[in-house]
Amino acid sequence: MPGVDTAFGADRARSFGGGKPWLLIEQGPSTVYAGDRVLPKQPGEMLRHSLGHIARGSEGTLFFQWRQSRAGAELWHSAVVPHAGPASRIFREAVGVGEAVAGLGEVAGAVVRAEAAVLHDSDAWWALDCQGLPSPGNDYHRALSRAHRAFWDAGLTCDFAHPEADLSRYRLVVAPALYLLSAAGSESLRHYVDGGGTLLVQHFSGAVDEHHRAHLGGYPAGPLREALGIRVEEYRPLAADEPITLSDGSTGGDWSESLSVEGAETMASYTHGMLAGRPALTRHRFGTGQGWYLSTCLDDPHYAALVAALAEQAGVRPELPGLPAGVEAVRRHAADGRSWLFLMNHGDCAWTAEVPGHELLTDRPVPPEGVGLAPGAVAVVRQPR
Amino acid sequence: MPGVDTAFGADRARSFGGGKPWLLIEQGPSTVYAGDRVLPKQPGEMLRHSLGHIARGSEGTLFFQWRQSRAGAELWHSAVVPHAGPASRIFREAVGVGEAVAGLGEVAGAVVRAEAAVLHDSDAWWALDCQGLPSPGNDYHRALSRAHRAFWDAGLTCDFAHPEADLSRYRLVVAPALYLLSAAGSESLRHYVDGGGTLLVQHFSGAVDEHHRAHLGGYPAGPLREALGIRVEEYRPLAADEPITLSDGSTGGDWSESLSVEGAETMASYTHGMLAGRPALTRHRFGTGQGWYLSTCLDDPHYAALVAALAEQAGVRPELPGLPAGVEAVRRHAADGRSWLFLMNHGDCAWTAEVPGHELLTDRPVPPEGVGLAPGAVAVVRQPR
Amino acid sequence: MPGVDTAFGADRARSFGGGKPWLLIEQGPSTVYAGDRVLPKQPGEMLRHSLGHIARGSEGTLFFQWRQSRAGAELWHSAVVPHAGPASRIFREAVGVGEAVAGLGEVAGAVVRAEAAVLHDSDAWWALDCQGLPSPGNDYHRALSRAHRAFWDAGLTCDFAHPEADLSRYRLVVAPALYLLSAAGSESLRHYVDGGGTLLVQHFSGAVDEHHRAHLGGYPAGPLREALGIRVEEYRPLAADEPITLSDGSTGGDWSESLSVEGAETMASYTHGMLAGRPALTRHRFGTGQGWYLSTCLDDPHYAALVAALAEQAGVRPELPGLPAGVEAVRRHAADGRSWLFLMNHGDCAWTAEVPGHELLTDRPVPPEGVGLAPGAVAVVRQPR
Repeated sequence: MPGVDTAFGADRARSFGGGKPWLLIEQGPSTVYAGDRVLPKQPGEMLRHSLGHIARGSEGTLFFQWRQSRAGAELWHSAVVPHAGPASRIFREAVGVGEAVAGLGEVAGAVVRAEAAVLHDSDAWWALDCQGLPSPGNDYHRALSRAHRAFWDAGLTCDFAHPEADLSRYRLVVAPALYLLSAAGSESLRHYVDGGGTLLVQHFSGAVDEHHRAHLGGYPAGPLREALGIRVEEYRPLAADEPITLSDGSTGGDWSESLSVEGAETMASYTHGMLAGRPALTRHRFGTGQGWYLSTCLDDPHYAALVAALAEQAGVRPELPGLPAGVEAVRRHAADGRSWLFLMNHGDCAWTAEVPGHELLTDRPVPPEGVGLAPGAVAVVRQPR
Repeated sequence: MPGVDTAFGADRARSFGGGKPWLLIEQGPSTVYAGDRVLPKQPGEMLRHSLGHIARGSEGTLFFQWRQSRAGAELWHSAVVPHAGPASRIFREAVGVGEAVAGLGEVAGAVVRAEAAVLHDSDAWWALDCQGLPSPGNDYHRALSRAHRAFWDAGLTCDFAHPEADLSRYRLVVAPALYLLSAAGSESLRHYVDGGGTLLVQHFSGAVDEHHRAHLGGYPAGPLREALGIRVEEYRPLAADEPITLSDGSTGGDWSESLSVEGAETMASYTHGMLAGRPALTRHRFGTGQGWYLSTCLDDPHYAALVAALAEQAGVRPELPGLPAGVEAVRRHAADGRSWLFLMNHGDCAWTAEVPGHELLTDRPVPPEGVGLAPGAVAVVRQPR
Repeated sequence: MPGVDTAFGADRARSFGGGKPWLLIEQGPSTVYAGDRVLPKQPGEMLRHSLGHIARGSEGTLFFQWRQSRAGAELWHSAVVPHAGPASRIFREAVGVGEAVAGLGEVAGAVVRAEAAVLHDSDAWWALDCQGLPSPGNDYHRALSRAHRAFWDAGLTCDFAHPEADLSRYRLVVAPALYLLSAAGSESLRHYVDGGGTLLVQHFSGAVDEHHRAHLGGYPAGPLREALGIRVEEYRPLAADEPITLSDGSTGGDWSESLSVEGAETMASYTHGMLAGRPALTRHRFGTGQGWYLSTCLDDPHYAALVAALAEQAGVRPELPGLPAGVEAVRRHAADGRSWLFLMNHGDCAWTAEVPGHELLTDRPVPPEGVGLAPGAVAVVRQPR
């Protein structure tokens, strides 16, 4: 699904800049790297890709490169003007993107406001890439992408945030693969839950401190353990082909942990082997918040359902209720209270968004029946305060 | 199928020498390399392998090596006299090959005459091995081998020829994966079609010139484009697992192109995605010849059927009509009009070739009912002018 | 099956020391390396693993390491005291192992007596790792492990022995993948069979001498060939996906040989290709013993059945008759005639061993009904002369 990959990159770019508007300075006009080959974009994808970035805070959409090289190492890199010249679909689509973006000038400076965050710590990433860890299954980039996708599938916008940042603005914070966690980060997470936040910490998190030294006496790191109300005694990786089922019917694999509750409630338990009957998913009511711990790697649908349930319980609001699968909705907010709702239909079914306002790409008021979105279509609706 | 691999190597060796008689100076007597292991030849395969080379122009059949090494890096390389000594099947078969070849002296100097050619340009091969191409699916050696096999399966003998060579002697020329094409080569192909030849150019051909510079304004190179009557606007590689079906029911994958006809007729069109309804296979009547362009990679049977149909239409004649699958027939011609028909049964069924003449291996006239070829059997029949 | 892997390592360690008592100086307390990951041991496995070594001659069971590293390259290596500290299952199990082993002091000095041996020659291993061999299928470690496992599955204890050693104490000797065989080793094997031993030599054995020089005139090396009564003319590796069936219904793959009997009887023959009807498994009555030759690689169950049948015929006695699958029984013998039977239940079913004596772990006499072994349970029974 190209839409979610664009959103992942754009949400990370925005978050790296602290949420301020930013600028996409390079995109390939007509190709996408796919493993060992370069696949062409579909008609309309250049526009959706461009608006996908602007929707999440970019102040424009630049391409690399103007004219396709006639020779050299990047001979086959895509360009606004391909080898075939301006008499080409690619150039015509690029002209169309320029025309569309020209109508969005009023959005400049408006920001994205997320009520949820995925924790992102480059030190944890670096540490997870070390040799000698118990299992190769804990890939940081994949873990982040799964968490982000769970929000995207639920129609929710999320930031990426550092564990030591002020998290109080978020209703829900998810921490996948946070293997390394500094003392300050651990204290920050405890503080977040204590103050009313909902935190979901995933397996093999808080195992080592910022010096890559293990936490002794039980994982994870002290203040975080207090907020979660658990003690992990043993990490127990699973064999590559060893699926597990929890007591609530959810399935997973790759990893398990032997843990005991120290104040938390068991929400789901293991059903196999020496861990049968022992806690797998826990919740701790701590201060005015909740600390959740998920000690295994759930399969994608079960993981997404858990994140969606926690988001609903924590009161994270979608940009637009009732979004069908494949339709993306993101909002940018101006300081004066106006906002712009970006709508992109990545799916195969038409849909009508009943949102009053003024549609910028057509420069017309939204008719009473709403904005029609054919498969592949996009719209940008200005809405008053 | 060992027979076609032998033919591929032998036809290339002959073509590299401009069609003059040549000499196979090394073959392993009893083994074939097969990926990570060395497989033994089957009984009789040494003789078929030897005659397969002679049939295609070799003036003899030499082995590497006489005696199997007792020690050293090639300890397990095969030899005419194996470790077991002369009291062995391998040595006895080698003696038999020598006796057979001794009876073929009169063939010396006779040549193979092909009416079809596969284009072979080492510069194109080198260029296709560069980094940064759109897809790894365009393997030059495999593309050549597929084209050669299509002729072999149809019972037709082909040469390999350079694009800049005089192609006028061929009724049909096939150009697979001719990614790089010099200006002179492009002009040569235009000239060939103009003069009455049938040319089949395959996808991603003529993309760059002899300096590895892309052709601008639409692929392929100018004079060739004129002969084909098309303009390729975009190369559109397919995902590795993305099959396609053309309007004539043939199937393929790996590659597609967005092209328009400029004088050519559409013989088959795409049926999927943005290319649906657009040309996939085209024919251009140009001068007194025909320029065909195939813009995707058809599956083997569909590709072989296309080559066979073009060969029949162009009047390429088989060495022997009615050959069953697995039986190979190749002819060497003497200057005085005599010819020698080499027959090799690689299949599992017996067959009788009704060809009058004198069979050299048995040194007897062919009986009225023809030459019987049991599975694995071979024959060499001298035929008068 | 962890039990047989432990036994393989322990039997090799004992055999390397000539059968004298030895000491396991390192084992990981709680983890097992499994390809790309480190899997946790199951509860009780630490004790079974420890006793598995002592049963086969170790005078104790040491661990690496006492305390899990807090940092550094071996941060995640297992330890007696894990990161979680002494309040952990792992430490409690280690304490239990110490208590169990403390009760076994009287076993010190007692030895294991095997009636069968698998030949083990590091030079053959080294030679099989050379480049340029006919097939990659002949992995020395795997071949040894398969042979050892065949004995283990049959409830039989075996040594590993060098071909040049005095083999006369063994009723059955198996030689897998003995590619390199010295002149002295070949003579030793001939002498062993001549003197009444039963020898099973497997494919691609005795191909080269101690200088990595091939044996000429037919494999294997001279004196061994005499004992086996065969002559191998050709090694014929099979394609990776080419299964074969012998005339006795057993199946195999990877390798075949063209051989003739010179005194031996054909016990099973090939049924495919050019080897159809030719000998695959042979037996030679030589002197007062028997020399068997197996020229292909049988599938595991058929290979194990052959080894078990030869062991029974040669009179190799199990430590305990009627052992169910998954229960291991090994005996250590003192010079004064006492012996200690080690029993380990690796399987999923309970079993009762009717063996009179004194059980050391509980320090109680065995009750009249025998020693009950729940799944995972162990026992050590002292038996009088």
